[in-house]
Amino acid sequence: MGTFSDAAGRIGPLDQAAAAETARHHDRLTKPKGSLGRLESLGVQLAGICGSCPPSVPSPAAVAVFAGDHGVLSEGVSPWPQEVTAQMVANFCSGGAAINVLARHCGAEVVVVDVGVASDIPVPDGAELISAKVRRGTRNFLVEDAMTKDEAIEALDVGASVAGTLVSKGMRALVTGDMGIGNTTPSAALIAVVTGRPPEEVAGRGTGINDADLAHKIEVIARGIERAKRESGDDPLSLLASLGGFEIAALAGFVAGGAAARVPVLIDGVIAAAGALVASLLAPGCVDYCIAGHRSTEPGSSIALDHLGLDPVVDLELRLGEGTGACLALPVLQAAAKISQEMATFDSAGVSEKAGTLDH
Amino acid sequence: MGTFSDAAGRIGPLDQAAAAETARHHDRLTKPKGSLGRLESLGVQLAGICGSCPPSVPSPAAVAVFAGDHGVLSEGVSPWPQEVTAQMVANFCSGGAAINVLARHCGAEVVVVDVGVASDIPVPDGAELISAKVRRGTRNFLVEDAMTKDEAIEALDVGASVAGTLVSKGMRALVTGDMGIGNTTPSAALIAVVTGRPPEEVAGRGTGINDADLAHKIEVIARGIERAKRESGDDPLSLLASLGGFEIAALAGFVAGGAAARVPVLIDGVIAAAGALVASLLAPGCVDYCIAGHRSTEPGSSIALDHLGLDPVVDLELRLGEGTGACLALPVLQAAAKISQEMATFDSAGVSEKAGTLDH
Repeated sequence: MGTFSDAAGRIGPLDQAAAAETARHHDRLTKPKGSLGRLESLGVQLAGICGSCPPSVPSPAAVAVFAGDHGVLSEGVSPWPQEVTAQMVANFCSGGAAINVLARHCGAEVVVVDVGVASDIPVPDGAELISAKVRRGTRNFLVEDAMTKDEAIEALDVGASVAGTLVSKGMRALVTGDMGIGNTTPSAALIAVVTGRPPEEVAGRGTGINDADLAHKIEVIARGIERAKRESGDDPLSLLASLGGFEIAALAGFVAGGAAARVPVLIDGVIAAAGALVASLLAPGCVDYCIAGHRSTEPGSSIALDHLGLDPVVDLELRLGEGTGACLALPVLQAAAKISQEMATFDSAGVSEKAGTLDH
Repeated sequence: MGTFSDAAGRIGPLDQAAAAETARHHDRLTKPKGSLGRLESLGVQLAGICGSCPPSVPSPAAVAVFAGDHGVLSEGVSPWPQEVTAQMVANFCSGGAAINVLARHCGAEVVVVDVGVASDIPVPDGAELISAKVRRGTRNFLVEDAMTKDEAIEALDVGASVAGTLVSKGMRALVTGDMGIGNTTPSAALIAVVTGRPPEEVAGRGTGINDADLAHKIEVIARGIERAKRESGDDPLSLLASLGGFEIAALAGFVAGGAAARVPVLIDGVIAAAGALVASLLAPGCVDYCIAGHRSTEPGSSIALDHLGLDPVVDLELRLGEGTGACLALPVLQAAAKISQEMATFDSAGVSEKAGTLDH
């Protein structure tokens, strides 16, 4: 389905004419102007993405959960054992994880992609797993580059290819998902290095660590960034390879692939935000196709989204990942398109309009 | 289906045992403890409401849109002509309004209730409208009580009865909706008088007014409150009658009726919040059954919800009413119950748990 590089080259601008026509159309619908807030702005963005007024409903949708492991876990940055990544991938395949429940609820399909899981995955009989393992986990970024540049490109390609395949199968919205024990650490490192914010502002408690462990995590991130900058300078691909995360690279590719195919891409939490941030550097223009699904409690999420100029649709204090927060925003996005498509106009409904002045 | 007074008397406490069992159950699901944030707390509340662990899914759902007109409109508090209330009721009946689009999207039924519309309603052929008109609009609260106490009780009864009927027909979630040109004015007045906050903090721009018109609206509200307090003191029913709103009274009844029937009631914007505030005084215990659907941009909404101790599920900068914001929260509420019901546990999925300490 084409490489990351192909996808990056195919990303076009939003259709400004369709967007502007949709904004004008919203003003004719039976409601005070602007009174549907974010639903109206999301509808305008969707029109720009799909190039029609009113926008088509972004449905069906698919959540792609990219899974990988992290060498830096050996530094003690998470209380969870590495084998949980593989066990959770099996759980995704069985349909028992949070993302399966929420995707079913929202009518989205879940595809699970092993892009770098370290352990053997106990895939249940009959379950589907896209096996695209670049390597069994990244290297420890305190010691050496997490990935080679070729490995990073391979992971970017996996993400772009999954996006392209899903759209070619008829998907009209893509939701970013992730799994990888320890992956808030490389995500925070990438967000800190790209945004220039200090690690102590970006790093969070991930799946749940105490103050001392958080201080250690911040120290690991700071030392990793120091090594990465020394060896990679400011080159985005080198920084991605250096600080790593196969699933983060794949998510960057997925964002670019969705943008190239002109479908909205819903960004989940801090891992997906790190991926989108990398994508914004490697595939300019892709951010216009992104919708921030939710604000994670992980501080790096808000920092990355602010840097990208994205305003989260919901804030439900989630910090799970897997695509859960983005999935909860999918019905809102679909509602926005339906508002554009289905509401009556003042003319068609015979409703009087607002007076120019008030008499008092 | 019983009166408001019956409903108020039947409201019981939440089932704390079911709630606590659900909280413990959430800790066994395949996710870090607490990582699903509001979904977990909503699930616990739902368990307390329906009295089972895991909670049943709050579906099917119905949105009840209560419509009424306001004598205070003659003071020039809204730029929209009064006949728009009736025209919009007809639009609801035809399925062309925002709430129809969103309710269809969320799988909810819309019922439209005329509890005090001033004009004749051009009901389309074949459309259903519950005709429960107490009076053709309230009186101007600057001059006299908006409703008599008997009228207020009649409107409360309408709301409680509609809630009871919907639940007896199988509805398992109720969504509050409203229509009434000028109704942010009585809502703000009631919220100001109950919370003790000054009208200039509570009043908002409603469907869109300029600074001068807002100043006038605040003045109208302040004078209305002065008259109401002088004549009604602190008696909640007298204040409701004095400042009025047939749809606000009906919404208060609807909240109490839903709580009595042990179903969750989703609160929409500033009108529904005013209704819930009145209900909290007349039917103690009902607030435990309420979920604030969204944070409206109308300042009185946040003030009322804070006073009630309710935290909105979404904040999408809506200010339309009709039940639109609450409707958008319905999928989140249903998702919370499904998380409780459908997720695998660590044991069932064979996923390892978090280590007690970190090794670094």
